[in-house]
Amino acid sequence: MGGPWSLGLDFGTNSVRALIVDIHTGAEVGTAIWNYTHGEAGIILDRDRPHLARQHPEDYLTGIRQSITSALTQAAKTPGFSSKHIIGIGVDTTGSTPMPVDRQGQSLTSHLEFHNNPDAMAWLWKDHTSHAEAEEITALASRMRPHYLAKCGGRYSSEWFWAKILHCARTAPKVFAAAYSWVEIADWIPAILTGNTRPEQVTRGVCAAGHKAMFNPAWDGYPDEEFLKALHPDLPRLRPTLQSKAANVSQSVGGLNAEWAMKLGLPEGTPVAVGAFDAHLGAIGAGIGPGVLVKIMGTSTCDIMVSLSKENLADIPGLCGIVPESVLPDHFGLEAGQSAVGDIFNWVVNFTRGNADAISHESLTAAAEKLQPGESALLALDWHNGNRTVLVDQRLTGTIVGLSLHTTPAEVYRAMLEATAFGSRMIVERVEEYGVKVQRVVNCGGIATRNPLTMQIYADVFNRPVAVSRSTQTCALGAAIAGAVVAGKSRGGHANFADAISAMTGVQEKIFVPNPVRAAIYERLFALYRKLHDAFGIRGTCIDLSNVMKELLDIRDACRSN
Amino acid sequence: MGGPWSLGLDFGTNSVRALIVDIHTGAEVGTAIWNYTHGEAGIILDRDRPHLARQHPEDYLTGIRQSITSALTQAAKTPGFSSKHIIGIGVDTTGSTPMPVDRQGQSLTSHLEFHNNPDAMAWLWKDHTSHAEAEEITALASRMRPHYLAKCGGRYSSEWFWAKILHCARTAPKVFAAAYSWVEIADWIPAILTGNTRPEQVTRGVCAAGHKAMFNPAWDGYPDEEFLKALHPDLPRLRPTLQSKAANVSQSVGGLNAEWAMKLGLPEGTPVAVGAFDAHLGAIGAGIGPGVLVKIMGTSTCDIMVSLSKENLADIPGLCGIVPESVLPDHFGLEAGQSAVGDIFNWVVNFTRGNADAISHESLTAAAEKLQPGESALLALDWHNGNRTVLVDQRLTGTIVGLSLHTTPAEVYRAMLEATAFGSRMIVERVEEYGVKVQRVVNCGGIATRNPLTMQIYADVFNRPVAVSRSTQTCALGAAIAGAVVAGKSRGGHANFADAISAMTGVQEKIFVPNPVRAAIYERLFALYRKLHDAFGIRGTCIDLSNVMKELLDIRDACRSN
Repeated sequence: MGGPWSLGLDFGTNSVRALIVDIHTGAEVGTAIWNYTHGEAGIILDRDRPHLARQHPEDYLTGIRQSITSALTQAAKTPGFSSKHIIGIGVDTTGSTPMPVDRQGQSLTSHLEFHNNPDAMAWLWKDHTSHAEAEEITALASRMRPHYLAKCGGRYSSEWFWAKILHCARTAPKVFAAAYSWVEIADWIPAILTGNTRPEQVTRGVCAAGHKAMFNPAWDGYPDEEFLKALHPDLPRLRPTLQSKAANVSQSVGGLNAEWAMKLGLPEGTPVAVGAFDAHLGAIGAGIGPGVLVKIMGTSTCDIMVSLSKENLADIPGLCGIVPESVLPDHFGLEAGQSAVGDIFNWVVNFTRGNADAISHESLTAAAEKLQPGESALLALDWHNGNRTVLVDQRLTGTIVGLSLHTTPAEVYRAMLEATAFGSRMIVERVEEYGVKVQRVVNCGGIATRNPLTMQIYADVFNRPVAVSRSTQTCALGAAIAGAVVAGKSRGGHANFADAISAMTGVQEKIFVPNPVRAAIYERLFALYRKLHDAFGIRGTCIDLSNVMKELLDIRDACRSN
Repeated sequence: MGGPWSLGLDFGTNSVRALIVDIHTGAEVGTAIWNYTHGEAGIILDRDRPHLARQHPEDYLTGIRQSITSALTQAAKTPGFSSKHIIGIGVDTTGSTPMPVDRQGQSLTSHLEFHNNPDAMAWLWKDHTSHAEAEEITALASRMRPHYLAKCGGRYSSEWFWAKILHCARTAPKVFAAAYSWVEIADWIPAILTGNTRPEQVTRGVCAAGHKAMFNPAWDGYPDEEFLKALHPDLPRLRPTLQSKAANVSQSVGGLNAEWAMKLGLPEGTPVAVGAFDAHLGAIGAGIGPGVLVKIMGTSTCDIMVSLSKENLADIPGLCGIVPESVLPDHFGLEAGQSAVGDIFNWVVNFTRGNADAISHESLTAAAEKLQPGESALLALDWHNGNRTVLVDQRLTGTIVGLSLHTTPAEVYRAMLEATAFGSRMIVERVEEYGVKVQRVVNCGGIATRNPLTMQIYADVFNRPVAVSRSTQTCALGAAIAGAVVAGKSRGGHANFADAISAMTGVQEKIFVPNPVRAAIYERLFALYRKLHDAFGIRGTCIDLSNVMKELLDIRDACRSN
């Protein structure tokens, strides 16, 4: 018979996915994706503001209904399945993606005046309009509240909550004035489903608050009004609209309200878990635990680790955040990431294809696969969208060294795959340097499942095995796991995350093992990557780069003579 | 009626051109191109030896006849023209392009054994197989004969005569053993036309010998046997096959012999000028004189200046050569250059076109023209084929900084145009630093005449006017001018180069004037280019590059806000 089932809702950059999972077997009985309809692939852009990336919240609301009803239709084919036996709902979203809301907690875009105003929409994670404000916040905090910075890697990012709000206050004062509060969409979706949208009542998830909004229990939650006032005189008015406590994903924000129960055909009162970011619930869906690095690889990459709360943990410079319970209860959550990964691979394809459909990820991958490490003499920096970890600097750009008149698109494609692997290794080395051991690497997300060449390159560059998670939809699976936990034993759910993860994820199917010859070449290339990384990325660094091109040619020549 | 006429023969990288010019009016009455048929566009390549570039000398011989007979057919349409009134012949070729020859001065490829052996062919200027030998020669000369190096910029290049011969001795001993001597094709073609091919009798032009083979009257011509022996025990045997004197282009190597007079339908005994490199005769065709910088812009760029012999001239580090009379009698000839220019633009087109014919130089130029300086935040190093001047280092590679997820092919195309302009400005600054004033810049060659955007960028980057020479075939015109001079007054030719240049070249038609706004932006970008140039190009240099990406973004942001 099977069941009961849990429902995971995963709001990505271009679409929303619903996933229905058997909480005892992990069987995925229904899944559906609904693509956002606004803007370009769901993203509102602005030619004159190249850093702008927004989303229309109507897409979220339509997406809830469309994706869930499709997934339910699919699940209905499983014998014994009934929507009445969905016992919990979990939600993950992109982030930091804050949105201005009115006193009732509705999006400002629901007001005619702001309907098509991008500043009134959700400010998508990859919106970098606020880099000046991020630097301002970093500068102020380092003088006034250095402890705020220590938990978010020493630098505040233009992708995050307060930078975006401050930028709105500066550049879109009407929107700012109309906004009673700002809510991360990770918090807003559960609030919508349960009908608790009034800003003061919205349960704020510790994942978003802690990693992106300088929330920490150590200082009474969000930043204090004095600090906010020093940033902008009108910011303190927001502070009372934000709760002083934040919740982790083992807690429920309430039950599905009557309106949404009817719309979706699900039982009223079904518990909805506190929302969290896709990467954090994705890490749960990939089987996170102490010593495991989970990499969620898509257009960008998020790296998640956890460390038992009872162990002492130093602040790690450059990490996006070390936040109690942001991933799992009783663990510190550690987040790092790379601002662009799949986005860079897409860029190479689009850049080199002309109008020819013959050029694709598949054709470039096939050609890149024939190349040996070092054979192209190319070395790239994967900073096309800035560097999130460990430099925390959006004003860095992509670079490629080693071009010749014979350089091919496949060589550049492979160099970019390698560059993201080198960038990832910088993160691994940084956390290990501060005492967090990486015993296993588990990759998930679209690139992990679709591109074995990239996985092999990561294994060779790391010189350690790389596993790929079993599920192809770990974020939604993690959300469903949270749903199974908040349902609780009384409804037939799981008592805790350890049990739920064990029952619903299982072992990895595919492990990529490093090749020692390739790993040795990558060791040399990584040393050169580190030179470029530090020379371009760290202020006041003087590094002799005059051997870089020559050593790349030496490596190439050695490769060709073999 | 018109006439008499002079004939210029211009052996390029992919083809040979013949040009028939009225020596009093400069009217070009006949011109024809014949494309080489061997290899790829005339160049023999080797997949396993990416630096290899050779030419089959059969192409030269066939090309003489094909191009001249076609040009004569065309000239015959001019009333009063007769091939009997061609009074002189001049020859220019690529270089350093040395070729192994037998005792009779014939190419080794005329022997069955070597017919298809690339090592027995002409070693084209852009063959870089000999970079290790170039470094060896530099190292030995700096210890043993430092004065040899001072005249060729302090470093011997892999493109040059002795590096190529030494590489042949090391890697193709059979070819080396069979070679009685080596001849630059600039000397070989006049020798062939006049029948004086025996190596000891071949007139060696001071242009090739002085700029590429460490020939200088100050030390009895070519390098001495002791030095050659220290490089390789078998090299000294070549020394007696090379004359101790070299001639300039105002001298004749002899008259057209009976065989070629018959083949070509030209008067037997027509004087043939000493051969020189395309850039040097191109500079004459573009109206060279003291204070004029002539840039011959094609797949690569050659920069030529002259300085009156009676004036004192310091050695200039990084210049390919300062050689008495290598361009004009009674003047020092100064040569500099960039190893790849048009080749880089071609690379961008091929790289980005996929299989789509819609992408072309024209389409990319049209899109690049719409961009403002700095708008892309890109900055490139034009080292895809190494750096000839001022770094004299083939083991440098192309680089691009500032890539984003929005970077377009047109932006990269423009960045490459700009990079070559910055590279050229480095050369201008170097010669001026050593007291050689640049009063006028005259560009010629295919890029100068076909790509006004590039010319405007050069004017803006130099912040001085850039003229484009009137003739679209300045190299062949320069060769014809040499023909008119060696004919001498007795045959109705010119008494000297000043008269011939004045009569046969005339004023430039098109002048590009710098725009002060763009020039100011390029001033900022050039400062960043210089940083990258020195950081990657000069051994032991430590430069803080951490502001480069940020300043590029600042420049872009300022540009966008205007």
